[in-house]
Amino acid sequence: MSNAPTQQVNRLDRRKARTRAALIRAAQSLIAEGRTSVPILEITQAADVGMGSFYNHFETKEQLFDAAVEAALDAYGQLLDRVTAGIEDPAEVFASSFRLTGRLHRREPELSRVLLSNALRLLSADNGLAPRARRDIAAAVDAGRFTVEDLDVAVTMTAGALIALGQLLHDQPSRDMEATTDRVTEDLLRMFGMTRRQAQRICSLPLPDLDAAGNSGPAA
Amino acid sequence: MSNAPTQQVNRLDRRKARTRAALIRAAQSLIAEGRTSVPILEITQAADVGMGSFYNHFETKEQLFDAAVEAALDAYGQLLDRVTAGIEDPAEVFASSFRLTGRLHRREPELSRVLLSNALRLLSADNGLAPRARRDIAAAVDAGRFTVEDLDVAVTMTAGALIALGQLLHDQPSRDMEATTDRVTEDLLRMFGMTRRQAQRICSLPLPDLDAAGNSGPAA
Repeated sequence: MSNAPTQQVNRLDRRKARTRAALIRAAQSLIAEGRTSVPILEITQAADVGMGSFYNHFETKEQLFDAAVEAALDAYGQLLDRVTAGIEDPAEVFASSFRLTGRLHRREPELSRVLLSNALRLLSADNGLAPRARRDIAAAVDAGRFTVEDLDVAVTMTAGALIALGQLLHDQPSRDMEATTDRVTEDLLRMFGMTRRQAQRICSLPLPDLDAAGNSGPAA
Repeated sequence: MSNAPTQQVNRLDRRKARTRAALIRAAQSLIAEGRTSVPILEITQAADVGMGSFYNHFETKEQLFDAAVEAALDAYGQLLDRVTAGIEDPAEVFASSFRLTGRLHRREPELSRVLLSNALRLLSADNGLAPRARRDIAAAVDAGRFTVEDLDVAVTMTAGALIALGQLLHDQPSRDMEATTDRVTEDLLRMFGMTRRQAQRICSLPLPDLDAAGNSGPAA
């Protein structure tokens, strides 16, 4: 007897979660297309949900777009965590994550545009990538691999470098993406106290395969 | 006899230049206040010029705002050129310019907001600051002070660091602005191949006085 209401609640929760996910997917597409000024009605139509259900989840359009950016960055951060889970050297974990993220600017231009159009938010410490960079840099410091006196500055420089790299790769379409990304990563490692030789070695190691991880990882 | 038409043209030119300057000043104030969505009529009223003269100078509001940002950055770049003109070591010229610009984020919050709200444009090489950074880094490379293999990457990292620093200083109002700016500058110098000791020395030198230069410089 007591089971039925619980099941009803769960069904309702699941439907609400589906509606929220559909709104967030629609918002992510609009951000990627640079069309964040569309009316809410167009968002709910793209998400195939009723206009009224928008306000069950979000107070404003800005709130939805914020949630959409956060979800995209968080999903990508979880993917990075999976593909770097087997790497022992924390300096290499940091370098691999940065090298993979730099390559995203051309491999995943939509996610790159989300990153760049939210550049200032990326620099603040509350999204899916900055806390991960902080964790990885701190681990490399603890292991004696990096010499960093101000962790906030190190995270900030990493985010600034990522945004700057993305803009450079968009501005110069013929530029070698892999060589440029690896050079910026080397620069960061040298800034974090590694020698040029150490930095070059770490940035020439083979990279994990994001696609394979994306298809077979636990979140798939 | 041939003088009169020339004078008329000059008078007309001067009036046009005044109108354009008034529109640009009004646009700069609106950018600093974050109010770039105001109608054109409000801009022309703030500039105290007729609605019609707007279209003698700009096709769209975006074109005016672009010109306003460019003018602000260029005026600031000229100021930097004046105050660093007497410095012989090109590495110190670069470091002084960056240290002064970092300090602007709190000393001149309006200009800082212009910088940050145009972060992506700042990263591309056609504004008033990026070409100057490129010139200064190239001079330091020529003088054997910096070791930089890819000038575009070095300029990009400088711009990324500047934006990231600004955001960090706004996010953490109690953070020591001068110490943080000097640390970021040191990090850049180390990235450009200087030793930690060289970088620390250059970043502890006394800085030129922007205010004095701004009031007595040739453009004042």
